[in-house]
Amino acid sequence: MKHLLGLRELSKEEILKILNLAKNMKLILKSETKKTPHLQGYSVVLLFYENSTRTRTSFELAAKFMSANTTSISVATSSVQKGESLLDTVRTLEALKTDVLIVRHSVSGAAHFIAKNCSFSVINAGDGMNEHPTQALLDMFTIRERLGRLENLKVAIIGDILHSRVARSNIWGLKKFGNEITVYGPQTLLPPFIDKFANVASSLEEAVADKDVVIDLRIQLERQKRGLITSKYEYYKFFGLNENISKFISKDTLIMHPGPVNRGIEISSDIMNLPNCTIEEQVTNGIAVRMAVLYLCTRKEAS
Amino acid sequence: MKHLLGLRELSKEEILKILNLAKNMKLILKSETKKTPHLQGYSVVLLFYENSTRTRTSFELAAKFMSANTTSISVATSSVQKGESLLDTVRTLEALKTDVLIVRHSVSGAAHFIAKNCSFSVINAGDGMNEHPTQALLDMFTIRERLGRLENLKVAIIGDILHSRVARSNIWGLKKFGNEITVYGPQTLLPPFIDKFANVASSLEEAVADKDVVIDLRIQLERQKRGLITSKYEYYKFFGLNENISKFISKDTLIMHPGPVNRGIEISSDIMNLPNCTIEEQVTNGIAVRMAVLYLCTRKEAS
Amino acid sequence: MKHLLGLRELSKEEILKILNLAKNMKLILKSETKKTPHLQGYSVVLLFYENSTRTRTSFELAAKFMSANTTSISVATSSVQKGESLLDTVRTLEALKTDVLIVRHSVSGAAHFIAKNCSFSVINAGDGMNEHPTQALLDMFTIRERLGRLENLKVAIIGDILHSRVARSNIWGLKKFGNEITVYGPQTLLPPFIDKFANVASSLEEAVADKDVVIDLRIQLERQKRGLITSKYEYYKFFGLNENISKFISKDTLIMHPGPVNRGIEISSDIMNLPNCTIEEQVTNGIAVRMAVLYLCTRKEAS
Repeated sequence: MKHLLGLRELSKEEILKILNLAKNMKLILKSETKKTPHLQGYSVVLLFYENSTRTRTSFELAAKFMSANTTSISVATSSVQKGESLLDTVRTLEALKTDVLIVRHSVSGAAHFIAKNCSFSVINAGDGMNEHPTQALLDMFTIRERLGRLENLKVAIIGDILHSRVARSNIWGLKKFGNEITVYGPQTLLPPFIDKFANVASSLEEAVADKDVVIDLRIQLERQKRGLITSKYEYYKFFGLNENISKFISKDTLIMHPGPVNRGIEISSDIMNLPNCTIEEQVTNGIAVRMAVLYLCTRKEAS
Repeated sequence: MKHLLGLRELSKEEILKILNLAKNMKLILKSETKKTPHLQGYSVVLLFYENSTRTRTSFELAAKFMSANTTSISVATSSVQKGESLLDTVRTLEALKTDVLIVRHSVSGAAHFIAKNCSFSVINAGDGMNEHPTQALLDMFTIRERLGRLENLKVAIIGDILHSRVARSNIWGLKKFGNEITVYGPQTLLPPFIDKFANVASSLEEAVADKDVVIDLRIQLERQKRGLITSKYEYYKFFGLNENISKFISKDTLIMHPGPVNRGIEISSDIMNLPNCTIEEQVTNGIAVRMAVLYLCTRKEAS
Repeated sequence: MKHLLGLRELSKEEILKILNLAKNMKLILKSETKKTPHLQGYSVVLLFYENSTRTRTSFELAAKFMSANTTSISVATSSVQKGESLLDTVRTLEALKTDVLIVRHSVSGAAHFIAKNCSFSVINAGDGMNEHPTQALLDMFTIRERLGRLENLKVAIIGDILHSRVARSNIWGLKKFGNEITVYGPQTLLPPFIDKFANVASSLEEAVADKDVVIDLRIQLERQKRGLITSKYEYYKFFGLNENISKFISKDTLIMHPGPVNRGIEISSDIMNLPNCTIEEQVTNGIAVRMAVLYLCTRKEAS
């Protein structure tokens, strides 16, 4: 595996290879020293064209725990401000002896474009409304660790499906294992033709009932050009995982959220405190999964 | 010692333990390599909600000199911008396997709140108008190194006492050793009930006369909501350590300032050049003190 | 060599010493591990008062590849915002045990001022319209590597000469080896008395004809107070290395550009794709040259 651009292009076997390795990486994370020499001498560049704490920090820690050289470039202070094209930025990174680029960009396909035009490894940390593959991988890791399997699952995804690269990556990944996906959200925040890929629930109650997993999405306030379609209060009332809906969720159902959470908008504090709510586990698993991806992208024999 | 939140809650013995260890750390700082393995495998996160060069860089260097993994999160590029609550940020940091969090926040009590809600160590790098404990510790370290003692001192603190967490931490710390504190500043920049903790001088001359130590505070231009109460020129004339006041300061009196300095507003260049002005020493001692604090917070047997 | 402030003050021998060492450093860059222990225990601070990706990242990687401790201070988040003077910032950095400061500043002479007032090494990463010595050194390294010599060269520099510290450093450096410099650009973007240092071409055709090297400068949009003197389209037509001018450039002529490039303003994509266009090589050589400079500035016996 040279790049990780999306789950769409990965096979079941490749996904399982990452998840299996991530299991070992999680043991390293739990060890006293949290340090491996696997990326010694590798130069890892984080190029983020959009704000991020979780994903950027998670990748940075993953790389540092593996002893890589890491350098972070955020766009506000970069040459991009001086009018440089993405292609020229890529060529500069190449000339700077980058081994792995971790990139987040507001344009769908940006990571693919870079991968086609460089010799280093590219890991997609989110491209527009397209994919966020490490998020879906950590979600799948969490599901498998909790439920013991990745198949025969009923998974609901709730919220702003249209703008969500997390939803898209999870749908690609989970469908490869033959799972049944149900989506629910405001009508205007469902993508066209979503019914070709997933069931569309007609109510929140229906969406969450009898599910193995409920993935609740973040309202992407910053991505909605004309502001929130409904008010925050109305969103919580009609689409939030709130006190009225909790009785429809089985106590065995995993409740997941990619974070950061808007408490009281898409999910209630009570539900966040349930033992089957995995939000923090997902964050830890994210480092393990990213360590596995970094490892596999830098092993030539593994490609 | 698991956390360092403020000097208010530390005993004399705990303060001395930090200062004694800092003495050793200063020797390491003066050595050729400036490197110890004490924090190898520890993940130190710097979370700054307010601007800082000195404190952030000082902590970062202290952690790096001790071989820690350091990661810096500044708020302009973080999830906080996406509406995440402080508690959720803390939980995320926990899940990211943070060992030590160094936090600066504009709200008094923020560091205490975090410490109550996490399992990692928290070091307060300044919380609102409350405390800035490592600054007071480095001031006390500098005083002891210069004057050979921490007791029987007459200490004046000059300037904007109201907004100053540096003043507050120094008062807590120095009072524990039975020292006599005198404050002086514009009437509107003195906190209510300050006379319960310190003498209030009636003139600058009286404030600085016969003192072992004069701590001159920075005018916190960014913290004063309605602008500077007096003009800069008037401040310098009436409250600045200027050419008129220097004759009242004994040549044995230490002149301290936490930096960054507004030259010609709170202190004159002439006074800054005096041999008993310790501004740069304080910066160096700051690294040593922070190394000691990082060491003690990460030794389980020492808690 | 303690500091690197500009090429104006370096002798031919000193320049050659840097370039010869950079050749070795380039071998390290091409090795599997890209790591040397030469700066172990050294604290390198990057202080950038102006935006930069290439130069900052290049220096940061150079320092990290040599195992230095690196810390980056950008001005938007620094004490400079709180009104601290440059001198006080320098004294703070000194007290923070800085070994090498890499500084970019909008004021010409800033690096020299710092070097006069500190005990650590200062490397100028660009000061106003004065010098950008490592850029010129990497240009000279690239020329020597490609053409096998640094003497008897005809070099054209095209574009905004007035605002360009790259032009200035290259003129100082290349003139020491007795090379013939020709400049060309909009009349209003030529410095006064430039004819004392270089030939002034009367047309772009004349400027590029029969040259060993053509250095094309970036239009410094951010440095021009009253906007671009001509429109971007007109600039490209009259001063850009475009399809009309390419037939006047010999296929043996090196085409160089410091980057970042404004494609279609100062240079066409076709010309950038020519085998004798060295833009990416320059970036790689930049790391090697900066490693050499860092090495020489920190070797006491070499000063």
